[in-house]
Amino acid sequence: MQKHVGVNTMMRSKIVLFGDSITEQSIRENGWGVPLANAYSRRADILVRGYGGYNTKWAMFLLDHLFPLDSTKPPIATTIFFGANDAALLGRTSERQHVPIEEFKENLRKFVRHLKECSPTMVIVLITPPPLSEEGRLAYARSVNGENATKIPERTNEVTGQYANACVEVAKEMGVWYINLWSKMQETDGWQTKFLRDGLHLTTEGNAVVYEELIKVFDEAGLSAVNMPMDFPHHSKIDSKHPERAFQQHV
Amino acid sequence: MQKHVGVNTMMRSKIVLFGDSITEQSIRENGWGVPLANAYSRRADILVRGYGGYNTKWAMFLLDHLFPLDSTKPPIATTIFFGANDAALLGRTSERQHVPIEEFKENLRKFVRHLKECSPTMVIVLITPPPLSEEGRLAYARSVNGENATKIPERTNEVTGQYANACVEVAKEMGVWYINLWSKMQETDGWQTKFLRDGLHLTTEGNAVVYEELIKVFDEAGLSAVNMPMDFPHHSKIDSKHPERAFQQHV
Repeated sequence: MQKHVGVNTMMRSKIVLFGDSITEQSIRENGWGVPLANAYSRRADILVRGYGGYNTKWAMFLLDHLFPLDSTKPPIATTIFFGANDAALLGRTSERQHVPIEEFKENLRKFVRHLKECSPTMVIVLITPPPLSEEGRLAYARSVNGENATKIPERTNEVTGQYANACVEVAKEMGVWYINLWSKMQETDGWQTKFLRDGLHLTTEGNAVVYEELIKVFDEAGLSAVNMPMDFPHHSKIDSKHPERAFQQHV
Repeated sequence: MQKHVGVNTMMRSKIVLFGDSITEQSIRENGWGVPLANAYSRRADILVRGYGGYNTKWAMFLLDHLFPLDSTKPPIATTIFFGANDAALLGRTSERQHVPIEEFKENLRKFVRHLKECSPTMVIVLITPPPLSEEGRLAYARSVNGENATKIPERTNEVTGQYANACVEVAKEMGVWYINLWSKMQETDGWQTKFLRDGLHLTTEGNAVVYEELIKVFDEAGLSAVNMPMDFPHHSKIDSKHPERAFQQHV
């Protein structure tokens, strides 16, 4: 008989998506959080903690609030998806978001240490920023500011790649999972417009890449949805004459 | 300065969607829960508690688990969206799901009483089942079972309408919000295929109707997302030289 948990499933398992705008937008139409929420339907809640424009320095202020160390039920998994803003260049239009690469790495380490302290069994997944299309950013700037738009991109793919590598280094160093989105997306020809809608944020296809890579990691980490118990019996298991039997708890 | 709450926002406000398959499927691509989650981004978590195939009788077993009376942070709003299965006809292929209409009403009353006991300020929204296309159901049966498919629909629009009316009566009687989806959808010509994909479950356009009606109710009930504080400051409010200032709490 199918096992299920019946006690206070308002407290069902949580998977937290922590990051910047690419995470904040994950629960929009075609976002990568939507198929994830569907895949874990009746098994885990997907909680979006995405903060548009935030870098790791600013996100540090949220850490204790989002992941209190005294939580009785910490997330079973958390994605940490920053770097796109940290990699903004000094002396360009988004320089206020810039975080030096060594500080970025140290911030990621602090995130990971904090989450491990929250729960030593939590599946932690570092996701690198996606690649950056400078042409896409300039086209976007023109679409917003017309002829007055900057002619010099505020981010470059090369520097974003350095932040992506830094992210992978931290993941390996600390023994947590990672997705090198920067590399992965560039394996596909035309990634600049296929996966990015404004040179930085994701298209439907770009969101699909994040979802597919993440599901692979969760499967490998033993978090496959099909192996997790459903919260309550499937309706076909309910005997309409004796429905109470299906709801007797199996511990 | 924008107000925000900074304490343990893992515990941010919750909006719970309680219902059958039409609720379970709300967080899929094009589902009505997706734009809702996006609208309440950084303000409230949308928690889906949808159980495919369930009627109100079976859902009754979940009530204490999903909505514990001793919760320190009950949902700020809950949608109760049942009836499509309760209205399955006796003597037809889905008769095991049938719940007599008086029992259906009494079950809805128990749901509402329980939620009010959970929290007297909770915004409770009863949603009636959508209209039912008998032709759509038969076509669906044929697509699954071919020539052996039943020629007699297991639900009718007339009976579903009686359950919808019963739902509205309970809502009025108990002073809670409601959406008469059964009536609303039938105001549009071609609702049978425009809003329903198999005579019962919702198309993209059908999902949009639920979302639009629900947002109207939430706005009227004072739960408009734009009037709710964001959990943390917008990135544009952060002084990059003194980021800590933006995170000082304003109570």
